[in-house]
Amino acid sequence: MPSRDTAPRTHRLPKAKKPRGLVMVNTGDGKGKSTAAFGTALRALGQGWNVAVVQFIKGRWKTGEEKAVRYFGDKFQFHAFGEGFTWQTKDYEKDVLLARRGWEKAAALIRDKKHTLVILDEINCCFLYNFLDAREVLKELKKRPVLKHVFLTGRGAPESLLRYADLVTEMKNIKHPYDKGLIAQAGIDF
Amino acid sequence: MPSRDTAPRTHRLPKAKKPRGLVMVNTGDGKGKSTAAFGTALRALGQGWNVAVVQFIKGRWKTGEEKAVRYFGDKFQFHAFGEGFTWQTKDYEKDVLLARRGWEKAAALIRDKKHTLVILDEINCCFLYNFLDAREVLKELKKRPVLKHVFLTGRGAPESLLRYADLVTEMKNIKHPYDKGLIAQAGIDF
Repeated sequence: MPSRDTAPRTHRLPKAKKPRGLVMVNTGDGKGKSTAAFGTALRALGQGWNVAVVQFIKGRWKTGEEKAVRYFGDKFQFHAFGEGFTWQTKDYEKDVLLARRGWEKAAALIRDKKHTLVILDEINCCFLYNFLDAREVLKELKKRPVLKHVFLTGRGAPESLLRYADLVTEMKNIKHPYDKGLIAQAGIDF
Repeated sequence: MPSRDTAPRTHRLPKAKKPRGLVMVNTGDGKGKSTAAFGTALRALGQGWNVAVVQFIKGRWKTGEEKAVRYFGDKFQFHAFGEGFTWQTKDYEKDVLLARRGWEKAAALIRDKKHTLVILDEINCCFLYNFLDAREVLKELKKRPVLKHVFLTGRGAPESLLRYADLVTEMKNIKHPYDKGLIAQAGIDF
């Protein structure tokens, strides 16, 4: 049985600055990048916010996160612009075109005042694969409304984005079911 | 403008094993551990599953994730057993008592057939702070129904749990708004 207190019993809060919209980035090779962004969506929806997702690259099939919109009426918007993984599309010009369409939608959602949280899911891969120019996206982020939160996910986030972001978490793969031959499962992976 | 294809265009799938319930762990010092578990909840709810959360340690105030249950009827259960951070409770005996009550509820949820996904939020901290014995929890996990997924979050996950788990992600803090004096915000952090 446990019997020794090892918990921290004191804590110092930082001097609080006024709340403002954050730019958040989840990157790295581990699982949980998109998932944590969708967890933030659930939290934000719980607090009564309007949330929009633009999903890049993925989107050939309807994911659990996309199906979840049915619970939230117009509080939760989901726009999928991908046509599957890059080894499924095999077509660079098409990938670029889809990414550009996704980005146009995303830019409109970043500018509006309706959505407090905008998630750009897998957009970092679009920078990594040369589907989108990170400079264009950064320029838009810098002009965003003061209380707008934007979450960018995907491996290979560019240095310029990491420098500008308020929050950066690297999801590090320690162990993955894939390594044991367990493939992606509905409800857990999509 | 982007113009050079750097995307992977081939991919090998592993030999697929039958789907089975996974034990998943998010640990590390970075943001996104609980959040990614709640993202998995959203995904699972989207796929029509029943999901239950037992929240340890936290729970003095109603979080966004807890408020979100109102959207899902009885598909999403939330049980908070904490009374705030350890520097707020300051009472080891009380923390142990609450953790034990949480664990009793959790064990019942792991045994039932109703909930496909059970999230034990911040339970790793209970091991770290000697509020709960990891051996007891592991014993229960090993006996769970074959399609039951269990997600354990919190820093300091014990070695024995990491060895047993199917998925382990370390959330590594690269940059946190806290460092700039920005405190936790509703909708983003809770």
